[in-house]
Amino acid sequence: MKQTAAIIGGGVIGGGWLARFLLNGWDINVFDPDPEAERKIGDVLKNARHALPMLYETALPEEGQLTFCTTIQQAVTTADWIQESVPERLDIKHKVFAEIQTHCRPDAVIGSSTSGLKPSELQQNAQRPEQIMVTHPFNPVYLLPLIEVVPSDQTGAQHVEKAKETLTSVGLYPLHVRKEIDAHIADRFLEAVWREGLWLIKDGIATTEEIDNAIRYGFGLRWAQMGLFETYRIAGGEAGMAHFIAQFGPCLAWPWTKLMDVPELTDELTQKIADQSDAQSGHKSIRELERLRDNNLIAMMRALKQQGSAAGSLITDHESTLRHAPGTSAPMRTVERTVPIDWTDYNGHMNESRYGQVFSDAADAFMIAVGADADYIAAGHSFFTAETTVKYLSETHAGQKITVDSRVVLADGKKVKLSHQMLDASGQILASCEQFMLHVSLTTRKSCPPLAGVEAKINALAAAHKEDIT
Amino acid sequence: MKQTAAIIGGGVIGGGWLARFLLNGWDINVFDPDPEAERKIGDVLKNARHALPMLYETALPEEGQLTFCTTIQQAVTTADWIQESVPERLDIKHKVFAEIQTHCRPDAVIGSSTSGLKPSELQQNAQRPEQIMVTHPFNPVYLLPLIEVVPSDQTGAQHVEKAKETLTSVGLYPLHVRKEIDAHIADRFLEAVWREGLWLIKDGIATTEEIDNAIRYGFGLRWAQMGLFETYRIAGGEAGMAHFIAQFGPCLAWPWTKLMDVPELTDELTQKIADQSDAQSGHKSIRELERLRDNNLIAMMRALKQQGSAAGSLITDHESTLRHAPGTSAPMRTVERTVPIDWTDYNGHMNESRYGQVFSDAADAFMIAVGADADYIAAGHSFFTAETTVKYLSETHAGQKITVDSRVVLADGKKVKLSHQMLDASGQILASCEQFMLHVSLTTRKSCPPLAGVEAKINALAAAHKEDIT
Repeated sequence: MKQTAAIIGGGVIGGGWLARFLLNGWDINVFDPDPEAERKIGDVLKNARHALPMLYETALPEEGQLTFCTTIQQAVTTADWIQESVPERLDIKHKVFAEIQTHCRPDAVIGSSTSGLKPSELQQNAQRPEQIMVTHPFNPVYLLPLIEVVPSDQTGAQHVEKAKETLTSVGLYPLHVRKEIDAHIADRFLEAVWREGLWLIKDGIATTEEIDNAIRYGFGLRWAQMGLFETYRIAGGEAGMAHFIAQFGPCLAWPWTKLMDVPELTDELTQKIADQSDAQSGHKSIRELERLRDNNLIAMMRALKQQGSAAGSLITDHESTLRHAPGTSAPMRTVERTVPIDWTDYNGHMNESRYGQVFSDAADAFMIAVGADADYIAAGHSFFTAETTVKYLSETHAGQKITVDSRVVLADGKKVKLSHQMLDASGQILASCEQFMLHVSLTTRKSCPPLAGVEAKINALAAAHKEDIT
Repeated sequence: MKQTAAIIGGGVIGGGWLARFLLNGWDINVFDPDPEAERKIGDVLKNARHALPMLYETALPEEGQLTFCTTIQQAVTTADWIQESVPERLDIKHKVFAEIQTHCRPDAVIGSSTSGLKPSELQQNAQRPEQIMVTHPFNPVYLLPLIEVVPSDQTGAQHVEKAKETLTSVGLYPLHVRKEIDAHIADRFLEAVWREGLWLIKDGIATTEEIDNAIRYGFGLRWAQMGLFETYRIAGGEAGMAHFIAQFGPCLAWPWTKLMDVPELTDELTQKIADQSDAQSGHKSIRELERLRDNNLIAMMRALKQQGSAAGSLITDHESTLRHAPGTSAPMRTVERTVPIDWTDYNGHMNESRYGQVFSDAADAFMIAVGADADYIAAGHSFFTAETTVKYLSETHAGQKITVDSRVVLADGKKVKLSHQMLDASGQILASCEQFMLHVSLTTRKSCPPLAGVEAKINALAAAHKEDIT
């Protein structure tokens, strides 16, 4: 059944909500008196259409219908969900809620994107307080799943349930906040870090860039996959969370931050934390948690490496000091590596497509060896693969060391054929591959002969490898 | 030239340092009086040997030699690098440093893993203070790149330079902290968040698990790739960092955290932050930063999805509500998706191995359609691919919508052959693939016929697809 969301206020946050619903097949009525609203929403929507579908291995539903409305009444009358993202002033929000409730369905959820206001404040003088709650998102709303769902005592239980179901259905994660509090949960942490960051800059300890590097090359990576407490549970080791608290508890009295107000670490509080941590992670041993953490870190850092960004680009820099040229021996040793954790599938072995990855990397090493390197590609030439045949001879597993031996078996102007063998550490053949490549101009995207220097090197290799085979 | 690191104290942190150096080809002398040291180090090393090589597309150097020493003298005499990771008590550290300096080379770097002590404190009464500094790592040291390098005024500039070069050479990122301060930089943020977290638990606002989810489904993902200030620069939009501060500055006076001490947001401090942010990120437009952030988030969340973890498992859950069974029409529509950003390579198009991924996914959809689903695999049966031939007919780019049509062209007991066509939105063929698959027992890892129900469905499809072709 087609559902409708009313988006009241269409800035970066409202636009993000709009995109999340629209790309999940909802119809959208948007109201924003800003004459620039359509352009601003268009910008967000462009980003979202680029980004959100890429998370999935399957197609998203057909986009819904997007309607720009001239009144709140027009936007909200038929809506199942009403998302308010107007400026953070209580008087403005109260006026908007009054107008919304005059026209909307009583069973609709009215969610507010407010960062700091409490739901009981939003509900003051409301016609039907039970349908109002905080649903606080994080930018970019079309990608990050967290929504803090904060009801007050007056919010209806059935409205909260409907809100959580709806959010889940469009790929969001509703975090039900059990007691209202200023700034909810996440922004309290952000505010604490922001305050400490301001001190560090003011006191000349660090620059914005140094602070960002202190975060993204260290604990930021831990937090992206486990958060604070599960990470510290691992640090406590087999002795557990209470041990960790005992070890680092005394630091609370030390000037490790300018922000000094702390609760007393009573036995009761320590036990409460340890019990909650057991409920959260106690079904996994510390060894299992370590392995989970490490595999997540590897996978994320490899993802960043593929993007040439953050911690990933550090690994690329280091890797460039480790690579050896494959030389021109027969056969060439074009790949020498470990099978990473992100290459295995549900069968517990290296996914078949990753054999293709290995042989693609072998072809890259061959290209560099014959002078078709980054500069050559930047100058507008490259090799494209036209046809590949892979024979899978044995299973390969994460952590296994593999090598590839490569030979040129055809060199005829723009046509090159490579033959690869993938070997394990004992020399057993795991897979073989024949790769038919065409030299192309990246300007015309058409095939053409390689430049003379490259062609000569390919021909020399072909001759050497022919002797090797015969 | 072979280099030697002395590891003084071999717990989780010392063991992590040891692994980082050893796996980068350094010889290691370790001293730890704990009778359990060898076992504990063995545990860390096992994790590190599993994890660190997976970050790279090339082999790490040959491991160095690992020697357990019975005295500090034996460990440090020839060492190029001495890493101290003993308990956080100044009197113990002073004793250890005195013993180290009696025997070590004056040009060696002596780095301390201390979280909280300042280098000037470590150097008190030292024979050669110039070779002592803080080199503070983050667990797991064998994976996370950040090392806070904190010299005091007495630390020698050449020792700091040598430290930074050495750390970079083993894949670490030396963050040179310009002024010593309690807890350096990163742990000050961790401490602030820890304090706020203790309040939230004490006051019954959230549990450890809810706090971890508030981090890892939201800002944790942002921080893993950009940190705090570059993320907020984007939030400021075209108006920049000063605009962001103007917008959120007033919150500093509000009770958004229990931790209330803040510097006054003078024009001078605002300008300082804006200038530093310009120096850090000013060479990229806000649109470029948004695209960079989004691509990083997509790649990291897809990496977590592949691991079945954190934000990635939320996407998998949502995806399961979006999938349609491929049905038994001729041909079967086995794939319908968008090409994600992490599938493109330096040629600007989808990497050839990802064509293999698409056809591998097509085979998975076929398997599910014939009843060879997760339960079937869990019961010990599956299909393995024996040979694949891919023809690349046209380039494919990130963001493009693609579909795959699949036909069964051979069904002969344990042998199945599929023929796939990958199409763009206009129906143009981008690539074709023939996949020869063998049904296997996952217990014996040998081929065998499928179970009767599955075989019957395959035969029915083969018959239907034969009519389609003829």
